[in-house]
Amino acid sequence: MKNYKPKKRLPAQAYIDGILKGDRVILSRAITIIESNLESDKSLAKEIVQEILPSSGKSIRIGITGVPGVGKSTFIEVFGLHLVKLGHKVAILSIDPSSQRSRGSILGDKTRMDELSVLQEAYIRPSASGDTLGGVSNKTGETMLLCEAAGYDVILIETVGVGQSETAVHGMTDFFLLLMLAGAGDELQGIKKGIMEMADMVVINKADGDNITMSKLAKRQYQNALHIFPASESGWTPVASTASAIKNIGIDKVWDEILNFKKLVDENGFFLKNRNHQQIKWMYNNINEELKHLFYGSKNIKRELSELEKDIVTAKISPVKAAQQIIDEFKNSFKLN
Amino acid sequence: MKNYKPKKRLPAQAYIDGILKGDRVILSRAITIIESNLESDKSLAKEIVQEILPSSGKSIRIGITGVPGVGKSTFIEVFGLHLVKLGHKVAILSIDPSSQRSRGSILGDKTRMDELSVLQEAYIRPSASGDTLGGVSNKTGETMLLCEAAGYDVILIETVGVGQSETAVHGMTDFFLLLMLAGAGDELQGIKKGIMEMADMVVINKADGDNITMSKLAKRQYQNALHIFPASESGWTPVASTASAIKNIGIDKVWDEILNFKKLVDENGFFLKNRNHQQIKWMYNNINEELKHLFYGSKNIKRELSELEKDIVTAKISPVKAAQQIIDEFKNSFKLN
Repeated sequence: MKNYKPKKRLPAQAYIDGILKGDRVILSRAITIIESNLESDKSLAKEIVQEILPSSGKSIRIGITGVPGVGKSTFIEVFGLHLVKLGHKVAILSIDPSSQRSRGSILGDKTRMDELSVLQEAYIRPSASGDTLGGVSNKTGETMLLCEAAGYDVILIETVGVGQSETAVHGMTDFFLLLMLAGAGDELQGIKKGIMEMADMVVINKADGDNITMSKLAKRQYQNALHIFPASESGWTPVASTASAIKNIGIDKVWDEILNFKKLVDENGFFLKNRNHQQIKWMYNNINEELKHLFYGSKNIKRELSELEKDIVTAKISPVKAAQQIIDEFKNSFKLN
Repeated sequence: MKNYKPKKRLPAQAYIDGILKGDRVILSRAITIIESNLESDKSLAKEIVQEILPSSGKSIRIGITGVPGVGKSTFIEVFGLHLVKLGHKVAILSIDPSSQRSRGSILGDKTRMDELSVLQEAYIRPSASGDTLGGVSNKTGETMLLCEAAGYDVILIETVGVGQSETAVHGMTDFFLLLMLAGAGDELQGIKKGIMEMADMVVINKADGDNITMSKLAKRQYQNALHIFPASESGWTPVASTASAIKNIGIDKVWDEILNFKKLVDENGFFLKNRNHQQIKWMYNNINEELKHLFYGSKNIKRELSELEKDIVTAKISPVKAAQQIIDEFKNSFKLN
């Protein structure tokens, strides 16, 4: 690993200057460094992030999720075009678990967003976050900071709604948008528990042609369901609406609601409070991940845990006692250092 | 602390024998040992739990939650009486955050369940879990095991629906029951986010007199909302129903649904699978709590964290860098041992 030198790295200042000038090529290369697992890149990445930090944060961060088939790429393209038309600079970061290994679907996505991707005011980047939740928070999170420092004032973070990355994305965005289809039932199975409660807005997509009546019904059902949820700390009551990305219907309404949300949370102080809370939580999540890594990274611990799991299931040892036993051993092993 | 000797402790075997014989006085004294924070009691508790472990688990564990005013005590009393009438032995463990300091509401609860509390087939115990989630899992969890070993075949664990203990209780029960009132809106504000999605059944209580029409409407609304949720891994579709504890209406229906649930999850294997999963998760939760305790228990760490929080909010340091910095210091401090 150590002998493998990364190619063509510039000095940190070159990336920092380029990002702050809004240079897309430099931005892309800096993101590659953020995503890299090379040790030399890690310190370079740290330096870049540290320096652009004061220039980050000046955007609205929107999480968008929905299962495959809901028309997410088309929606995001049309939504992005709408935002660019309004004068915004839009960065789109896609977290696609299936792309993390093969990168197969990335080209597909890019092709599908071909109208948006040629615009200077839009920046589209699949986010290679690795397999871990920490990867989503850190790599996608830092990529987001870089995009903000490069002048993008709307950040869309896209996930597929079937994994765990939604919680991480919810933890780093201001507004969470859930795309659904009419005909409640089957396709709902794909959405993980808890995602619905995170939504600030549910958009029933593909509300066109024969599907309009069903979509309006679905909208009412979701609206009722969302009302039954406990109020969010933001003071915002989640809304449901219908849209047809392909016919460009209802897209403006989505942005209008986001602006309504922004106005509310700016005025009641939740926006800043939540941002600060998210930043601090980001640190704690990292600390807790590292602590777990220290412990679970040990081969001895791993072997013993699998023994303890068996003993617990067969009622040979209580879960509490098992935990104490292995923590005591962990402490002792540290003292030997 | 060390000089303070606990009074009148028996040898471990006396508690074990007493519990296995179903002796309520011994059971109560053993639970007191479980709840104690004295070091000498902790090892005694560990021995008792270890020995009764093979005799535990033979019950259905039901979590019941709802905000104050929903009529929880009355519901539980009437439900408990119904179960005793059917030949069950019922243990009721109440986790009341307000009682953890003052114990004020405990006597109130006991008085309100006076019909049930005099029966030999019912055992009512406020669970002093302390202020931590770990306390709920460990102390209430181990108390539950003791009750099972003493022959109680239905365990009801009651929480107030406003804190975090619901997640812990959901993680140690087979079936999760949410009590609500008609007139959706105001009182919903009291229920924490996420609790609704854990519910296997929502019961609209106080469905009597003038309130019947509203309650039936509320039932339909919840039924619709529950249907919109993603399917649970149990294969069970959550149900909504109305009840009036005070008039003893709809109580049998609650138990019938729990039996339907039990039949389903016994047949599809989820019951055992979930139990095993819960036990193993219990160990991991303890390990992770202990790891955090090791780290956050340090005064130096605490001081530095509060500095880092300020620096993060003012964009002086990135959350990722802050975490790495403090974890590196933690590792170094260990090496000095």
